[in-house]
Amino acid sequence: MKIRIGIFGYGNLGRGIENAIRQNPDMELVAVFTRRDPKTLTIGSPDVTVASACDVGDYKDKIDVMILCGGSATDLPQQTPELAKMFTVVDSFDTHARIPEHFENVNKAAKEGGNVAMISVGWDPGMFSLNRLYASAVLPEGKDYTFWGKGVSQGHSDAIRRIEGVLDAKQYTIPVDKALEAVRSGIAPELSTREKHTRECFVVAEDGADKARIEKEIKEMPNYFADYDTTVHFISMDELKRNHSGIPHGGFVIRTGKTGANSEHNHVIEYSLKLDSNPEFTASVIVAFARAAYRLTNNGETGCKTVFDIPPALLSMKSAEELRKEML
Amino acid sequence: MKIRIGIFGYGNLGRGIENAIRQNPDMELVAVFTRRDPKTLTIGSPDVTVASACDVGDYKDKIDVMILCGGSATDLPQQTPELAKMFTVVDSFDTHARIPEHFENVNKAAKEGGNVAMISVGWDPGMFSLNRLYASAVLPEGKDYTFWGKGVSQGHSDAIRRIEGVLDAKQYTIPVDKALEAVRSGIAPELSTREKHTRECFVVAEDGADKARIEKEIKEMPNYFADYDTTVHFISMDELKRNHSGIPHGGFVIRTGKTGANSEHNHVIEYSLKLDSNPEFTASVIVAFARAAYRLTNNGETGCKTVFDIPPALLSMKSAEELRKEML
Repeated sequence: MKIRIGIFGYGNLGRGIENAIRQNPDMELVAVFTRRDPKTLTIGSPDVTVASACDVGDYKDKIDVMILCGGSATDLPQQTPELAKMFTVVDSFDTHARIPEHFENVNKAAKEGGNVAMISVGWDPGMFSLNRLYASAVLPEGKDYTFWGKGVSQGHSDAIRRIEGVLDAKQYTIPVDKALEAVRSGIAPELSTREKHTRECFVVAEDGADKARIEKEIKEMPNYFADYDTTVHFISMDELKRNHSGIPHGGFVIRTGKTGANSEHNHVIEYSLKLDSNPEFTASVIVAFARAAYRLTNNGETGCKTVFDIPPALLSMKSAEELRKEML
Repeated sequence: MKIRIGIFGYGNLGRGIENAIRQNPDMELVAVFTRRDPKTLTIGSPDVTVASACDVGDYKDKIDVMILCGGSATDLPQQTPELAKMFTVVDSFDTHARIPEHFENVNKAAKEGGNVAMISVGWDPGMFSLNRLYASAVLPEGKDYTFWGKGVSQGHSDAIRRIEGVLDAKQYTIPVDKALEAVRSGIAPELSTREKHTRECFVVAEDGADKARIEKEIKEMPNYFADYDTTVHFISMDELKRNHSGIPHGGFVIRTGKTGANSEHNHVIEYSLKLDSNPEFTASVIVAFARAAYRLTNNGETGCKTVFDIPPALLSMKSAEELRKEML
């Protein structure tokens, strides 16, 4: 019997989940839930039900794992606890500072419902977090660094779009090569925000807009750009669509540390991702952890879990014997 | 109360464990066990007992986790099951093909003794295995590659030393840059043994030895060198000691895979290690997993485990709350 999956929310991430399920033959997509009128939503799987978010309770016995594809700002803080009362759920809550609070709320609801709820699954938080944890456990005398990019930051692109005279924009976060090299050398540098990443912006301005003013507003925007070296390019809408329509991302988690009787030996642990599609890769991670959540629920576990709590073997379609034989 | 550790066997790995324990304030080294006469062995920790391997049974209640530092060829297949009857144990059994058999033997003994026994802990098998598993679970439609080096292969160095006329030798395994680049490009190439790695040998020959014959014997040695492009350098004993006395190693685990409605997006997951000391890094990994083994035993679990079975949070000195707050 296949693991029956529901998708709650159908944006880029939801579509990514839909595609990822097709790569996992032990899973099937049962329904997609939307807050829009279900009749107006066409999904990529013609034989799958599209249902109203309001009717999700009717699916309690028809879905093994509900995957939440809403945003971290307002959707997930409300939806994950609510749905964890009814379903085994997985979300990709990514507001790092609010994870402890989200954990507590979800944990309470999941225990009440007798379900497992996995939060903050994806690549950061997610695979990057795992690599920070493994590397720091293995090299206690060391220092770790996370770099993001080259990739599109949706939040920064949105911030530029809100400036008067801007029609559209794409912002790339780019790790600084010199900083990466310094980290890999093992000297454990202290790096400022400005030294780690640069920001490159491709902006389509309205005809006759004051480009100098737009560039100044971008570069001086607090939190988003003021602490970075930022480059602004004005381009045509045509060029933006042609060359900047993808959602690539990626990054690096690097830990360097020392061992030996006199700390005489250096070690570098590096994990990196180079992703053509940020939401599709996030979706692929979520689907693997949905399998683990399903198995934990079947083992009688309840409550909120993160990637740190999951024995890796539970992520794989292969049996424990196969994994030991083929991958260990 | 600290986790009380015993070291069984005191070579490079045992010394690495001794040093790694000093970096982990929740652990203490209680005793080192040797098959030699304990009086003849001086260890790096003057206040720690050196005991005979024969007396290990006397330490049943004095040690929480016994770390086995013997070799995979003959020591561990016998020692791990024997000691798993008495102790929670961790070994670094690294003969990949014999892991299923070793698992069965150790599992039986550990269940008999009511202990947890972790096998095949280190970096390959170990951290590399974990990365193969995570990456393949996340990108089911993909292909993975493991490259080793640049690093010293003890087995290949030993093989050269057995050739007539050779006084000493060091062999480096080197990944081929062109192969690494082809893999990272996402074209999922089929690579032969020869295309993935080269072998570089530094050989000290006896005075008057036939160097041409030695070089030919190395390059044509089946299994070890015949399938590789091998370079042989003859150097002086002095130069070998000066420039080739370290035991560096490392390598790469790379998986590329596709996602999307039409598999239109490529992704690259890469994990790499650059290690100044192979045995010390292996020891650092083992010590982190010894903490997990201790915690599993305290939770009442028994039997043989591998790195695939361990929730990552168990490896860290930090609490689950701290990990979620600081690392997720």
